[in-house]
Amino acid sequence: MSTTTPYARAFTSDNVAGAAPQIIDAMARAAAGPAAPYGADSFTADVRRRLCEIFDHDVDVLLVSTGSAANALSLAALTPPWGSVLCHRDSHINNDECGAPEFYTAGAKLVPLPGDDAKIDPEALRAAARHKRGDVHSVEPSVVSITQATETGAVYTLDELHTLGSIAKEAGLRLHMDGARFAGAVAAHGCTPAEMTWQAGVDLLSFGATKNGTMTADAIVVFDRSLTPELAFRTKRAGQLASKMRFHAAQLAAYLTDDLWLHNATHANAMAARLQEGLKALPDIGFPGAVEANVVFCRLPQRVIDGLLAEGYAFYHDRWEPGVVRFVTSFATTWEDVDGLVNAVRRLTA
Amino acid sequence: MSTTTPYARAFTSDNVAGAAPQIIDAMARAAAGPAAPYGADSFTADVRRRLCEIFDHDVDVLLVSTGSAANALSLAALTPPWGSVLCHRDSHINNDECGAPEFYTAGAKLVPLPGDDAKIDPEALRAAARHKRGDVHSVEPSVVSITQATETGAVYTLDELHTLGSIAKEAGLRLHMDGARFAGAVAAHGCTPAEMTWQAGVDLLSFGATKNGTMTADAIVVFDRSLTPELAFRTKRAGQLASKMRFHAAQLAAYLTDDLWLHNATHANAMAARLQEGLKALPDIGFPGAVEANVVFCRLPQRVIDGLLAEGYAFYHDRWEPGVVRFVTSFATTWEDVDGLVNAVRRLTA
Amino acid sequence: MSTTTPYARAFTSDNVAGAAPQIIDAMARAAAGPAAPYGADSFTADVRRRLCEIFDHDVDVLLVSTGSAANALSLAALTPPWGSVLCHRDSHINNDECGAPEFYTAGAKLVPLPGDDAKIDPEALRAAARHKRGDVHSVEPSVVSITQATETGAVYTLDELHTLGSIAKEAGLRLHMDGARFAGAVAAHGCTPAEMTWQAGVDLLSFGATKNGTMTADAIVVFDRSLTPELAFRTKRAGQLASKMRFHAAQLAAYLTDDLWLHNATHANAMAARLQEGLKALPDIGFPGAVEANVVFCRLPQRVIDGLLAEGYAFYHDRWEPGVVRFVTSFATTWEDVDGLVNAVRRLTA
Amino acid sequence: MSTTTPYARAFTSDNVAGAAPQIIDAMARAAAGPAAPYGADSFTADVRRRLCEIFDHDVDVLLVSTGSAANALSLAALTPPWGSVLCHRDSHINNDECGAPEFYTAGAKLVPLPGDDAKIDPEALRAAARHKRGDVHSVEPSVVSITQATETGAVYTLDELHTLGSIAKEAGLRLHMDGARFAGAVAAHGCTPAEMTWQAGVDLLSFGATKNGTMTADAIVVFDRSLTPELAFRTKRAGQLASKMRFHAAQLAAYLTDDLWLHNATHANAMAARLQEGLKALPDIGFPGAVEANVVFCRLPQRVIDGLLAEGYAFYHDRWEPGVVRFVTSFATTWEDVDGLVNAVRRLTA
Repeated sequence: MSTTTPYARAFTSDNVAGAAPQIIDAMARAAAGPAAPYGADSFTADVRRRLCEIFDHDVDVLLVSTGSAANALSLAALTPPWGSVLCHRDSHINNDECGAPEFYTAGAKLVPLPGDDAKIDPEALRAAARHKRGDVHSVEPSVVSITQATETGAVYTLDELHTLGSIAKEAGLRLHMDGARFAGAVAAHGCTPAEMTWQAGVDLLSFGATKNGTMTADAIVVFDRSLTPELAFRTKRAGQLASKMRFHAAQLAAYLTDDLWLHNATHANAMAARLQEGLKALPDIGFPGAVEANVVFCRLPQRVIDGLLAEGYAFYHDRWEPGVVRFVTSFATTWEDVDGLVNAVRRLTA
Repeated sequence: MSTTTPYARAFTSDNVAGAAPQIIDAMARAAAGPAAPYGADSFTADVRRRLCEIFDHDVDVLLVSTGSAANALSLAALTPPWGSVLCHRDSHINNDECGAPEFYTAGAKLVPLPGDDAKIDPEALRAAARHKRGDVHSVEPSVVSITQATETGAVYTLDELHTLGSIAKEAGLRLHMDGARFAGAVAAHGCTPAEMTWQAGVDLLSFGATKNGTMTADAIVVFDRSLTPELAFRTKRAGQLASKMRFHAAQLAAYLTDDLWLHNATHANAMAARLQEGLKALPDIGFPGAVEANVVFCRLPQRVIDGLLAEGYAFYHDRWEPGVVRFVTSFATTWEDVDGLVNAVRRLTA
Repeated sequence: MSTTTPYARAFTSDNVAGAAPQIIDAMARAAAGPAAPYGADSFTADVRRRLCEIFDHDVDVLLVSTGSAANALSLAALTPPWGSVLCHRDSHINNDECGAPEFYTAGAKLVPLPGDDAKIDPEALRAAARHKRGDVHSVEPSVVSITQATETGAVYTLDELHTLGSIAKEAGLRLHMDGARFAGAVAAHGCTPAEMTWQAGVDLLSFGATKNGTMTADAIVVFDRSLTPELAFRTKRAGQLASKMRFHAAQLAAYLTDDLWLHNATHANAMAARLQEGLKALPDIGFPGAVEANVVFCRLPQRVIDGLLAEGYAFYHDRWEPGVVRFVTSFATTWEDVDGLVNAVRRLTA
Repeated sequence: MSTTTPYARAFTSDNVAGAAPQIIDAMARAAAGPAAPYGADSFTADVRRRLCEIFDHDVDVLLVSTGSAANALSLAALTPPWGSVLCHRDSHINNDECGAPEFYTAGAKLVPLPGDDAKIDPEALRAAARHKRGDVHSVEPSVVSITQATETGAVYTLDELHTLGSIAKEAGLRLHMDGARFAGAVAAHGCTPAEMTWQAGVDLLSFGATKNGTMTADAIVVFDRSLTPELAFRTKRAGQLASKMRFHAAQLAAYLTDDLWLHNATHANAMAARLQEGLKALPDIGFPGAVEANVVFCRLPQRVIDGLLAEGYAFYHDRWEPGVVRFVTSFATTWEDVDGLVNAVRRLTA
């Protein structure tokens, strides 16, 4: 996107949005007065307390600066270097992190699995989980990584999650969840955070916040607390232990206050649903996947794509099959923005 | 330090300070409207432009979340895995980063060198730089890392820097500067940033800002721009490429505007000088090292140390020889804070 | 295979064979008298001299203890940690080395490509070589690794090699050849070692010898000699620089004397061809791939497989589709061994 | 040393010797007939059985091609990447392996400790073992590595070993022994292998054989067998799992038969003792350290050093203080060789 794209036309990603006003206020308030460094401050303690409540579990929390760091640190704690990470072939860890998992794990191997809507196919997982176990000639299946919501905007049902979790646990594998859009998944299904994570066997969750309203803060939520000491060393060693940790913590504390995280995600999902609804009513537009969170994949005629770009709309369009585009909504997207996009497509289709 | 230590008694480190008001304002302003992710935003471009001016050099810039990340990424770009990093034995990279340099470099070796005031001794460097060069049985001397200002609050003179730089370059080694307190060093000597860096042979600078007024943002300044592509990949792979990079950039842009970085550092240095001056006037107090930036090491009688702790003062005191304490001032330290501390010592000494 | 399987029934792999008599004699002769350690001996110099002649090129040579080490060291010298290795999905480096390439490269990613007979499909390579070049979110295509002869016993033609080499070079990628069965490939096609390697753009060759008559010695042949210093450090650091290098070297010197390497390979290939010829004449037997070196894949009725196992034959049979078995011949396989196997299959088929 | 140095004048290292006749015979015998690959052969089983007897312990064994590989693999199994290895500053792992421990451990830090005769000083170990335990800013003390016999040819007494072992165990650290010259140490003290290893707390032993008569084979002896699965994966991944493992195993089996390992070491030690005795009788010759195994450090007048070199003697002389030289004897050194050297020194001294 151009540096002058207005919000109303910025559908590239939820990471092009700014920050929620509550986050900004919290940062400003946190800046006053001294605070103990490296997470020994009251803001960080507050975040942990809130996450224990939200997940109905005694969790530990590590605050990091990016979702890639959360993912890579988590995987490093769950697989030895000679292990493999079973993940969807379209997953962010497999395609979009420049090998961060390989770096942090000291060379573990990502094994890409198929499945519709970027969800791991259970039968493929079952086979991969048993592949050459204990054979020193091959990497050892060690951890399953599930993305919730998925890269295409679909959301695993609880049944689907529990099925994958059971396969992992029965095979003796650990379970990681990449929750870069975790709030959107919870908002979509109306289930509890507990049901979606540790009750399905999740050991470590990358709890995304940046895409949903914070500035520079994501977190690892540790359900298996025996992993915490190792994660603490790994986080420091990775240059991810912020000295002024309070500034990550203040963002997350505000994010978790008064259900801001769910409100923001519910809004973003609603905007995507409205967008899909609006587009569905138009001719010649198809939807290759389910729209359950805040991502809308659709097929548009080339002249429509060209027209939108000419009008200054920003979105990804050249990464998949010809004609497939991706629109992403966020907490900052408005009804007017969505209706404007739908109207533009209508005009261009006509 | 306790979570309720007031500013007036918080001398633990410059990382216990909050953020400068200008930084807070900039963060708030940056939050409005969309921006391209991953550093393709106008804030990031602005930071680079400002740093080019300040350093009088066509530099590249990578924004990262911690000083440890800046150091480790820089070293990884300057040494092969079988190389060695020549550094002072008291340096942060050697003692306080949990092996981050070893992690990022894939196992290079840090070779600790002696020297007063945590400055590398030139003769020791000369010997180490030639040690077993080209001998495959030994790690290969590859890069020198200089901390400016040093861990003890001393500041290399330009002559000292140029001597070390010459030794490095003559031996074919690269040069890194850990500038966690770079602003303090520039403020102390009144020389130009250019004289202190690339004119002395520095290839990469960890440009610290967090200790001097920002929240969560440090930077790598790249003088040898042939290193930039590699650094870009390494930064992403390390989980250090922020999606909403504008929020790191906005902090640094404000930090570099109207000389805020130098004003803050000048103030912190002045507070340390005032503290030393005040303490010098008291009996039984010694200073094991030079006080040139914002760190004051001194020797206090044990009853004074105990008394200060009892009064709620926070500072490091049990990490070195008995009786040696460290006071660190910051942009947020006031004259009253310093005078309060001096008076407390006077009372306890009496 | 059982520890008492006789040669006549051992078709598991060419690594179950012992050593050629000439190799044994050379080892014994090399044991007399002192020799400079770490490759500064005359045996090692002799190996290099012979390989320069054989490849008609000024090459450097590093002797290592296994083919996996040769592959992993080569790849580490040809890709940065954030790079990717384009290879066939059935390749040994991808499936059978427990992540050695990932370990040695500090976490590079292997990108598996399709293609018949375990040969990389040129169109697939062309696409992969250009995939997200220069995009820091993705690993960077860096090196192509070709296995010659392939895992299924096929042999790339010179045309095929040159096509793949051209694609690699045009895209700016380096080229590695896994020649665990290189002698067999040269013997199969009757072309020169030069044509098959550097003339096709190969930068580094894993020159296998263990499967073809030596005991514990393989080699890296370095066509791009600018890589030698790096490889020397990497080899030492990997624990692959033998102190009594002469004992690796003596094996290879003998292996390269009087064309032993080619005679052994020609024999092994001939045994495989005879085996295929014999089996072809029988009913209900299919060959899923080309038989050009010393590996015969075929489809047998289950009762024949069971019968052979009952008679004490050793071979892999449960790693692919049901009914697919692999027979491997070696320099030590005799005509009688082959005819015995064919007769056994004939009996069991009847 | 030159490539034509005769045995009688080759005192550079025990790795310049060839191989014992029994080893050569064993290699030749092992070459006949097929054998299961990757250590599933009867030779490898035999080695394990013999080592169980010799160490009076149910051990596992991994055969590798170099002592550096044995050390690095062992350390990798005993420390996490964020751990530290406490070792003598003169140790082989610290100085002579090009960072192999750092490579295999994914970046652990070697902490060099002082001590006479290259033996770790117990008080220094006690302090280092407790240094910043559990502090995420620092690497975590994880394993102690003891070299027996030491780099200077001294041998730890059982008391000294048990003291170091106790310090390690009380601090919760693991214990590794670099036994590149283990046979020499056992021969020197006349104690049992058990007393010198697991009874002193050793978890993993690098059992050296190459310096004492084998060609290309060393071993890791695993006393804590819970480490075996991890070591098996690490060994394969490191390219150290030989396909024709029998050829490593046959060497070691012969080495352990009829006490060859002890006979060879006893002889080498006796040669060193005779050398020291002969030199002691001469004027102007000092011995900076104890001579207990097969290494003799002594101080010679420069004209003697020059004279020996001129006569074709080979030994290290330029690695320590001026005038300090190292002579190493081996199983292949004869009484005549030693007397020849003593006579040469006598002549040159006169």
